[in-house]
Amino acid sequence: MSSFHLGPNQYGKAEVRLVTVTREGDTHHLKDLTVSTALRGALEDTHLTGDNSAVVATDTQKNTVFAFAKEAPVGEIEDFALRLGRHFVDGFDQITGARILIDEHGWERIHVNRHPHHHAFARGSGERRTTAVTVDGDRHWVVSGLTDLVVLKTTGSEFHGYPNDKYTTLPETTDRILATAVTARWRYQGTDIEWTKSFLEIRRLMLETFAETHSLSLQQTLYAMGAAVLAERHEVAEIRLSMPNKHHFLVDLSPFGLANDNEVFHAADRPYGLLEGSVVRDDAPDPGLAW
Amino acid sequence: MSSFHLGPNQYGKAEVRLVTVTREGDTHHLKDLTVSTALRGALEDTHLTGDNSAVVATDTQKNTVFAFAKEAPVGEIEDFALRLGRHFVDGFDQITGARILIDEHGWERIHVNRHPHHHAFARGSGERRTTAVTVDGDRHWVVSGLTDLVVLKTTGSEFHGYPNDKYTTLPETTDRILATAVTARWRYQGTDIEWTKSFLEIRRLMLETFAETHSLSLQQTLYAMGAAVLAERHEVAEIRLSMPNKHHFLVDLSPFGLANDNEVFHAADRPYGLLEGSVVRDDAPDPGLAW
Amino acid sequence: MSSFHLGPNQYGKAEVRLVTVTREGDTHHLKDLTVSTALRGALEDTHLTGDNSAVVATDTQKNTVFAFAKEAPVGEIEDFALRLGRHFVDGFDQITGARILIDEHGWERIHVNRHPHHHAFARGSGERRTTAVTVDGDRHWVVSGLTDLVVLKTTGSEFHGYPNDKYTTLPETTDRILATAVTARWRYQGTDIEWTKSFLEIRRLMLETFAETHSLSLQQTLYAMGAAVLAERHEVAEIRLSMPNKHHFLVDLSPFGLANDNEVFHAADRPYGLLEGSVVRDDAPDPGLAW
Amino acid sequence: MSSFHLGPNQYGKAEVRLVTVTREGDTHHLKDLTVSTALRGALEDTHLTGDNSAVVATDTQKNTVFAFAKEAPVGEIEDFALRLGRHFVDGFDQITGARILIDEHGWERIHVNRHPHHHAFARGSGERRTTAVTVDGDRHWVVSGLTDLVVLKTTGSEFHGYPNDKYTTLPETTDRILATAVTARWRYQGTDIEWTKSFLEIRRLMLETFAETHSLSLQQTLYAMGAAVLAERHEVAEIRLSMPNKHHFLVDLSPFGLANDNEVFHAADRPYGLLEGSVVRDDAPDPGLAW
Repeated sequence: MSSFHLGPNQYGKAEVRLVTVTREGDTHHLKDLTVSTALRGALEDTHLTGDNSAVVATDTQKNTVFAFAKEAPVGEIEDFALRLGRHFVDGFDQITGARILIDEHGWERIHVNRHPHHHAFARGSGERRTTAVTVDGDRHWVVSGLTDLVVLKTTGSEFHGYPNDKYTTLPETTDRILATAVTARWRYQGTDIEWTKSFLEIRRLMLETFAETHSLSLQQTLYAMGAAVLAERHEVAEIRLSMPNKHHFLVDLSPFGLANDNEVFHAADRPYGLLEGSVVRDDAPDPGLAW
Repeated sequence: MSSFHLGPNQYGKAEVRLVTVTREGDTHHLKDLTVSTALRGALEDTHLTGDNSAVVATDTQKNTVFAFAKEAPVGEIEDFALRLGRHFVDGFDQITGARILIDEHGWERIHVNRHPHHHAFARGSGERRTTAVTVDGDRHWVVSGLTDLVVLKTTGSEFHGYPNDKYTTLPETTDRILATAVTARWRYQGTDIEWTKSFLEIRRLMLETFAETHSLSLQQTLYAMGAAVLAERHEVAEIRLSMPNKHHFLVDLSPFGLANDNEVFHAADRPYGLLEGSVVRDDAPDPGLAW
Repeated sequence: MSSFHLGPNQYGKAEVRLVTVTREGDTHHLKDLTVSTALRGALEDTHLTGDNSAVVATDTQKNTVFAFAKEAPVGEIEDFALRLGRHFVDGFDQITGARILIDEHGWERIHVNRHPHHHAFARGSGERRTTAVTVDGDRHWVVSGLTDLVVLKTTGSEFHGYPNDKYTTLPETTDRILATAVTARWRYQGTDIEWTKSFLEIRRLMLETFAETHSLSLQQTLYAMGAAVLAERHEVAEIRLSMPNKHHFLVDLSPFGLANDNEVFHAADRPYGLLEGSVVRDDAPDPGLAW
Repeated sequence: MSSFHLGPNQYGKAEVRLVTVTREGDTHHLKDLTVSTALRGALEDTHLTGDNSAVVATDTQKNTVFAFAKEAPVGEIEDFALRLGRHFVDGFDQITGARILIDEHGWERIHVNRHPHHHAFARGSGERRTTAVTVDGDRHWVVSGLTDLVVLKTTGSEFHGYPNDKYTTLPETTDRILATAVTARWRYQGTDIEWTKSFLEIRRLMLETFAETHSLSLQQTLYAMGAAVLAERHEVAEIRLSMPNKHHFLVDLSPFGLANDNEVFHAADRPYGLLEGSVVRDDAPDPGLAW
């Protein structure tokens, strides 16, 4: 007879849009977060019988996010996520694990007469700083990152030497536009870390490496970016990068009697290349449930 | 001294928008697919030195998708994905694995004078049939599914009995709207399967179970949908469901002296509940690289 | 000296997501609307001095939408919009005009054992029925329509005979895919109309005309669709159509030694053609503020 | 007998994604534009009979955009749009009007060791500089603007004194977050203008006015922003602003025994307020076909 069972599962509240304001004299500080919480544990009953005595309502999870934002300063997203995850796992017997995702949206002060304004802000780029904290019993892992960091080089990128099979038509090139939207996630070893300082340095290393690497393939650039981070930032055990190749095709202007010396491009939408790769420290601790 | 290495990686062409037309007398058949290919293998060189001699260009992958669509009928998306994956793994020594994702977009014939038209179509709902085929050496796995199947029940859904902690404010209810957008992915055992027949039956089972289950929690509905599939469809080893709880909040009309007996609702955007769960056959084969 | 004044303005609440349930015995009926209200009138004070004594708060507008949905059956979107618009203009001295936009989202009953279910629904296509009602003093106009009706013909479409200038490279064709996403808005004469019956007939006429017209240009198809509506539906004074040409490019398979007899296409995202046109009844009444 | 005719119409190519690179020694300059062209004129034939002898193909329009980007430096978007519009109207007898829309996407140089890089860039915010140029015979109009400039003030915003009717529940406030995404379009008088200088000054005036205005209503802020532009920039005849009120709701923490002194907010998605208003110079020239 056929039989089956409940497999891995989790549930929570996704995309709580939390904005906080803190005041330092006349100067206001703004924090703009999207917080998602998910809980894991002894949840068979609700699945099999609809008995919800173990189910911390997702509405309660949302309330907890807002209340926690008041009870103590939110601080760094990594710390806030750890506090939230720890609260759910420690506070409810049946909840043995939690996964907290936070995206931080950037704002910059508006300048008036070249001075930063006390309480007026303009939204920065679409790039977001991210963290994913996993708590399991008394263990926890922090994977931080960034997403939608869109970068482009107008030269310093080649692509040739790839195999020619019967379906290959791409011309080789020694000079092309290289553009991508970087999503990076790095796994920290430990949690005694200056999160913002670490984030800013990792971001700087990736940007500078993207700019400075003479690229023979986007894979080479991806690896160089990850390697630069691991070489410098010892708090990072592993980094995973996802980088679409946002194609900029040279427009064929020859029908109009015009040359096109890497001057006029069509930015295509789809399809796009998509590269996913990782760089791992040789002595990295076991990832456990980090990802 | 710090040292590190290339970790898991793959690369490919994402979201090739392939549309094919086949003719049967005057009757045209339309297939509208979004195909993504990704390859895995001995790819250290391109990452470390930019030597691309192992890199089947993503442009070549795209060409292959289009050419394959001509060389033989596309057929079912599972078979097309298997053919593509097998081609890359068998055709290139350095490529040892492939992952092919296909989404199928639905079209319905326009009716003229109540008769289906030979060659005119209207787009159906946003729901998509999906498959993810993984090839590794001479092995392969098929995970098919659907995404964005948006369903709603206006009654037959309760939620109560959950824990009350200091952050709980949600009132219990014995009658609420239940709405979700189902994403389901099921792992097949074997590939000697009538894919479309299987898909249609699985979809029917999920829809009927959603409609017929008197729900005490969305988790219960999720499990019931998965269990219905495993009980009836022996070709499925495991099913994973992701179901947002698309909240429809009862509007408080009491300030206007009006009752609201489950008549007027506000459909909220964010935050939303998010449930992820799976139902697994007890004797399911090892998933390997299927997911 | 430089001087200036407040020009045209309006304000309101956009995208109220109203869902209503009505019960007929065991059978539930579902209405899913997105309602936007905007008010016009003597609004100089709030703009010039911040005196809000004329400003019906947008929060109040939202409450009114929800309360009205309870006070009487919502009914047809045109009637609901007229009621709302009339309420604001008649109820507040300083409000002399209103513009109410409603989009209706379609749902279909889930079938269980081939019978439509009493209270379980699945979301239909992304197409939406729309209305835009304008009230000015004691006058009003109704412009209804539909948006995102995505249609495609696999043949019966040609395009040739266009001018050749030095920038022209497009090959002429006598057989291509024609695909578009129709947005249509039609202006009614009068309001004593069976709105749903009119809507369904107009939609049918457009679909059948799209299917049946042998097309020499998308413009010809657009005009034929509009003309079919005006020829049959005398309640319509004017129809405006916006139709992107969603290009499906024949893939060049010749590098692979393959023919492509209108079998394999690439569905492009951008750029796309965009056609906007209208068909107007010769004796149409003045449009006033309808658009 | 019923009769009708072709009404207003235009057609063109939408969203050509043009990227250009110009070199100044080692320093590369990047321009990233989305260009849409639309033509008007004696287009009855294609609509009524499918005779395309007047239809400059949208593919040709696209080619023209790319070719023009090579034939001379693109320069300012207003000048490029004027060149394109003039070309179509002057070059084809049957084309009597054109409307060219250009959005410019911002990029910033990546800094390496605190120096701006020669050829590596990161995408800026989602804000876009825009222009809409209309050509009709030998006349033309330029309406420039910006869109998606997202700004927020954490204080300095009140809202009270609005009418209380039976549907009003909103509490009055003397301190709230004010947030919006500015879309502004301003009509220039004449074309002998330093476009970029004008744009930057107008943008600065709007940002500074948003920050500095103590706001009693978003309408007041909108008008102040427009008035600041008209007071200082005499090249502008009229400015139109569309500003959603992106609500940030104070979270009620009282159930948890917590105060909330404007510290913790929920950023809502929908519905949102939507304000549209304009400021017009008293002696503004007739707008003609500008909008």
